[in-house]
Amino acid sequence: MTRVFNFSPGPATLPEAVLRQAAEEMLDWHGCGMSVMEMSHRGKEFMGIYAEAEGLLRELMGVPSNYKVLFMQGGAIGENAIVPMNLIGRNGKADYAITGDWSKKSHKEATRYGQAQVAVQGDNVSIPKQSAWKLDPAASYVHICSNETIGGVQYHWTPDTGRVPLVADMSSDILSRPIDVSKYGLIYAGAQKNIGPSGLTIVVVRDDMLGHALPITPSAFNYQVQGENDSMYNTPPTYAIYIVGLVLKHFKANGGIAAVEAHNARKAKILYDFLDASSFFRNPVAKEDRSLMNVPFKLKDETLDEAFLKGAAAGGMIQLKGHRSVGGMRASIYNAMSIEGVQALVKYMQDFERQHA
Amino acid sequence: MTRVFNFSPGPATLPEAVLRQAAEEMLDWHGCGMSVMEMSHRGKEFMGIYAEAEGLLRELMGVPSNYKVLFMQGGAIGENAIVPMNLIGRNGKADYAITGDWSKKSHKEATRYGQAQVAVQGDNVSIPKQSAWKLDPAASYVHICSNETIGGVQYHWTPDTGRVPLVADMSSDILSRPIDVSKYGLIYAGAQKNIGPSGLTIVVVRDDMLGHALPITPSAFNYQVQGENDSMYNTPPTYAIYIVGLVLKHFKANGGIAAVEAHNARKAKILYDFLDASSFFRNPVAKEDRSLMNVPFKLKDETLDEAFLKGAAAGGMIQLKGHRSVGGMRASIYNAMSIEGVQALVKYMQDFERQHA
Repeated sequence: MTRVFNFSPGPATLPEAVLRQAAEEMLDWHGCGMSVMEMSHRGKEFMGIYAEAEGLLRELMGVPSNYKVLFMQGGAIGENAIVPMNLIGRNGKADYAITGDWSKKSHKEATRYGQAQVAVQGDNVSIPKQSAWKLDPAASYVHICSNETIGGVQYHWTPDTGRVPLVADMSSDILSRPIDVSKYGLIYAGAQKNIGPSGLTIVVVRDDMLGHALPITPSAFNYQVQGENDSMYNTPPTYAIYIVGLVLKHFKANGGIAAVEAHNARKAKILYDFLDASSFFRNPVAKEDRSLMNVPFKLKDETLDEAFLKGAAAGGMIQLKGHRSVGGMRASIYNAMSIEGVQALVKYMQDFERQHA
Repeated sequence: MTRVFNFSPGPATLPEAVLRQAAEEMLDWHGCGMSVMEMSHRGKEFMGIYAEAEGLLRELMGVPSNYKVLFMQGGAIGENAIVPMNLIGRNGKADYAITGDWSKKSHKEATRYGQAQVAVQGDNVSIPKQSAWKLDPAASYVHICSNETIGGVQYHWTPDTGRVPLVADMSSDILSRPIDVSKYGLIYAGAQKNIGPSGLTIVVVRDDMLGHALPITPSAFNYQVQGENDSMYNTPPTYAIYIVGLVLKHFKANGGIAAVEAHNARKAKILYDFLDASSFFRNPVAKEDRSLMNVPFKLKDETLDEAFLKGAAAGGMIQLKGHRSVGGMRASIYNAMSIEGVQALVKYMQDFERQHA
């Protein structure tokens, strides 16, 4: 068995130790005679798995006690509707900071449910400074996407939205670095990039945000209903919750989120330092807004794109093709990507440059 | 390792051969160097897994070509809202046949989106004859739940709704027996009882049902949008789709749905024959409407319930406690429950009756 270096933007690579444990426990979890997949979500075995995953998430993210942690379904694209359904009803309007394709999509979807205002419109290669934002003090919330996977821009500061709650789509950088949860009214994230498999959406929501759901909000996607039912108003995606629990346990055993952050910073530095020194490859993003998760880059001569991808795959480095809307390449280097993976990529890029420059 | 006989109402037992294969392939699927969990949903490996699962579902269910098969999220409770969001808009009203707790919940949720009418109200221990139904010829659809897991009643006939499309929640009996898909406008089912893990919802929808979504329908839950995007408008629950593919392949290799049906009928007969012969245990459901999936039963003396459950667990038979709303016991004997499991349960019941009668 040879494992590849998988630079997929999501679903993405997972810690090998987690996959090994999942394989070992597949037919018989802790001697209970069942797979986790077969457990009733209301049985004591799964309730324990659930409580452990929630506890680890609270501990690693530092979630205050006046926040609920929900394990939901539908991913961030589902949440683009579920967030306004639950929150926009307070004042009927919300502000959206558009910094790339994901926040643009979030804004568009929100227009179905109220007045979705554009607080600021970015240029896809930087995060607009707060001075350029036009915030409505009567908005129900301000929505941001903390990391844009396509453009490769990321907030390295937290917007000050005064009394208006800040809502963040952290699908692509959740648990990649410490954050101050108390600065947010709501955080949501699909699990499939940094902490687990697809099909699970994490929602962390402050208690006072609840109670404003529009009447058309489905019960299964109503935060208050799910909060009152410990995310079990409908059957949750049990196996995905189990895997997330294993991933979080792995992070904790390896130094917690501070260590994850240091690891991510080191990987990104290796790649950006190389890009900045190269005249063959380039990354278009403003240095202070560069994503530590998704590193898009272009070859000077794009007729070499195919050869670059083919050579990378031959060397066990896959999913490096950039998003179709921007072209070029993209290396997604989420939490579980190793230093070795990034080093191998840079080594390959150096060799490729030498051969083709 | 000793595997238990798991009578959980869902998530539920899965074929051991499927779990073995999933364990073996966990770190490296077919030599690609990745777990299925780590694959980009748009990569060639997962696209192949997806196409195979969809193809098997179409083949085993006999899905005509003018139907879309969608792999969605949110379970049947999510669909309780998603179905009317997508379909009730044609005429603004729909008929619901209430035969138990699940169809009651479906009806209640639909009232948020239009005029949800009660076509018939059952007594929880039988399926009302069609002559008792009051159908509105101008309804957008007629909704049924083909099997009610709590009461243990199941349709053994297909309602004739004339020109009004029939919509069925088959969460608890999908692929447990052959059905004529062409009699339905839409079929939906959570996967976690008969064909896979939780977190995946199967939707089979006839093309002409699409195009009536209410403006408040989230894009991620819009059947037309998902149909146009091969269920990849948002990231689908990839690992659950893979497991469903393995389960369907297992069914096919073991004789297809005709064999599954025969197996299920045999299991149910063993259990019902015993219950009918016993004066110690009883099942309250009308014989012609009994569920082949969920067999609720009560002990003559309910003070013995705890002892019954304790003894069962000691013998490796778990999750036999009835739903809290009805009490007593319930054996859920979905597709993957073995004859041996049901035989072991009946043997235990015989012994228990002998000791306590």
